[in-house]
Amino acid sequence: MLSVLEYSSIFIDYLNERSLDKEPKNLYTPINYILNLGGKRLRPVLTLMATELFDQPYQKSLDAALAIEIFHNFSLVHDDIMDDAPLRRGQQTVHEKWDINTGILSGDAMLILAYQLFENYDGAIFKELAKLFSKTAIEVCEGQQYDVDFETRDDVTIPEYLRMIEYKTAVLVGAALKMGAIVAGASKECQESIYNYGRDLGIAFQLQDDYLDAFGDPETFGKQVGGDIIENKKTFLYLTALQKSEKDEARQLEHLFSITPVDPTEKIETVKQQFIDSGAADATKSEMEKYTQRAFKSLDTVKISENKKELLRAFGNNLMKRTV
Amino acid sequence: MLSVLEYSSIFIDYLNERSLDKEPKNLYTPINYILNLGGKRLRPVLTLMATELFDQPYQKSLDAALAIEIFHNFSLVHDDIMDDAPLRRGQQTVHEKWDINTGILSGDAMLILAYQLFENYDGAIFKELAKLFSKTAIEVCEGQQYDVDFETRDDVTIPEYLRMIEYKTAVLVGAALKMGAIVAGASKECQESIYNYGRDLGIAFQLQDDYLDAFGDPETFGKQVGGDIIENKKTFLYLTALQKSEKDEARQLEHLFSITPVDPTEKIETVKQQFIDSGAADATKSEMEKYTQRAFKSLDTVKISENKKELLRAFGNNLMKRTV
Repeated sequence: MLSVLEYSSIFIDYLNERSLDKEPKNLYTPINYILNLGGKRLRPVLTLMATELFDQPYQKSLDAALAIEIFHNFSLVHDDIMDDAPLRRGQQTVHEKWDINTGILSGDAMLILAYQLFENYDGAIFKELAKLFSKTAIEVCEGQQYDVDFETRDDVTIPEYLRMIEYKTAVLVGAALKMGAIVAGASKECQESIYNYGRDLGIAFQLQDDYLDAFGDPETFGKQVGGDIIENKKTFLYLTALQKSEKDEARQLEHLFSITPVDPTEKIETVKQQFIDSGAADATKSEMEKYTQRAFKSLDTVKISENKKELLRAFGNNLMKRTV
Repeated sequence: MLSVLEYSSIFIDYLNERSLDKEPKNLYTPINYILNLGGKRLRPVLTLMATELFDQPYQKSLDAALAIEIFHNFSLVHDDIMDDAPLRRGQQTVHEKWDINTGILSGDAMLILAYQLFENYDGAIFKELAKLFSKTAIEVCEGQQYDVDFETRDDVTIPEYLRMIEYKTAVLVGAALKMGAIVAGASKECQESIYNYGRDLGIAFQLQDDYLDAFGDPETFGKQVGGDIIENKKTFLYLTALQKSEKDEARQLEHLFSITPVDPTEKIETVKQQFIDSGAADATKSEMEKYTQRAFKSLDTVKISENKKELLRAFGNNLMKRTV
């Protein structure tokens, strides 16, 4: 097995090799642009890793890894239009650099290009990959829709929120790993277990993102601390705080999440204090831990060496270490 | 073999049965809406017909037909956003009835749902259908991009225009037929021939659309006669007229296609006259005829009875009879 950094570097080389120098330029240039903006390449690395966990060379899953990364970037391009986001990874978003129509059409083409990459696998594997991909992709769309719906709903429940982040973010992490397992010819049981490991780690990671958005170190957290509070986003922290607060505090919190003051400093401080006082901050940390442990538990039934399991636990702990 | 109307009615029943009563509602309601707006259902009918042409029951290709129709509607939803079109089949477009974000996300989901329908076919057929689908879908995106690009280019050539309509419109007609042939287990040669028949008929049909846009009967032509002229659209008629006109007339035509008068009546009349005088109108009719005959020629190598070929010719002639 190689290190995460080595897989990442191999993947980036492969991505560069496969750069689409095709016509019409106005369709393919934005695709190359977004694919080369960088990012952690977490998902394709997981695909390559999973193939080697099941004793097959990572080379076999490069195309599946590329499909996952292209799909991930497709969803970013379309989500950025929907969120009206000007920046992605510190650079202009596709619809900002070009226009909305370019963002829509290039995104569509990326979704199709992702499917085409599976054609490099033989019939049975092709079908398994494409089926998993479609199921995952439709869940990502559903997750995005739930996220949009939640903006205008004031009765979002915690299970609903957890399903939303599962669909919008976590299933793709699970699918990235499962694709590696499929390509390696792992058993159905192992495929499911590695999927569950990835999905639960993905949920834990997203909960951590919610937590750090409020309590992260401004020096190391990539985004604006308090961003979710400014945007009145109904995160796990908020929903839990509402549930755990006394009536008056809950009402105050709801009120704060209905306003957008020009200077949000005081609002952020009040909300964060309520997140702590209500016990929501601790509850979020517990939930993160619960999903991380659940992810690790899924490894019990995976038929790989203890060394390799240790590697996956180290990967998970590393991903979750931002909290401590 | 059944009649076109019978296949159409069978298809609509199947579509209604498969109506997506799923959550989240805000994702699936717009999908059901656009799929139930009507339309000729030309493409799915061709898929069902093709399966029966090759001696298999149409029931086998209902899912492939549905995939084609869902894809077609996906492209309408996204194109309507790009074209800022308020109406589709006399009803509000999806982004108009809901909003642009709904149009983008529901469209994305439709593209994925189309792929999922192929899962009802076994491994080899599944792969053939999905491969053809991806190839076609990416060409449709490329065709749409060329169409967008042409708006701001003044050096579009006739071969470029023909490639644009081939990609944007005609390949999907070919693919609809070829899918029916794939499901029926027809030989590769027959698959290619029936594809070519559909593609060339699709090009002829689109050229006819260009022609009728200028010279159609306002009573029977579905759209506003002269619409392309008002929008300065570089159609086959226009590009041919430019090529066939003397320098002065060509300049005048270019000028007319750079302005948008409040009352376009005079512009439309002048342009139409130039289309006739330059010989472009006749040349367009000849080109339509050329592609129709080329489509029929492809039938020579298809291994089906002469009766069935006659049926396909009748279908083609019926489609093209709007001209006479």
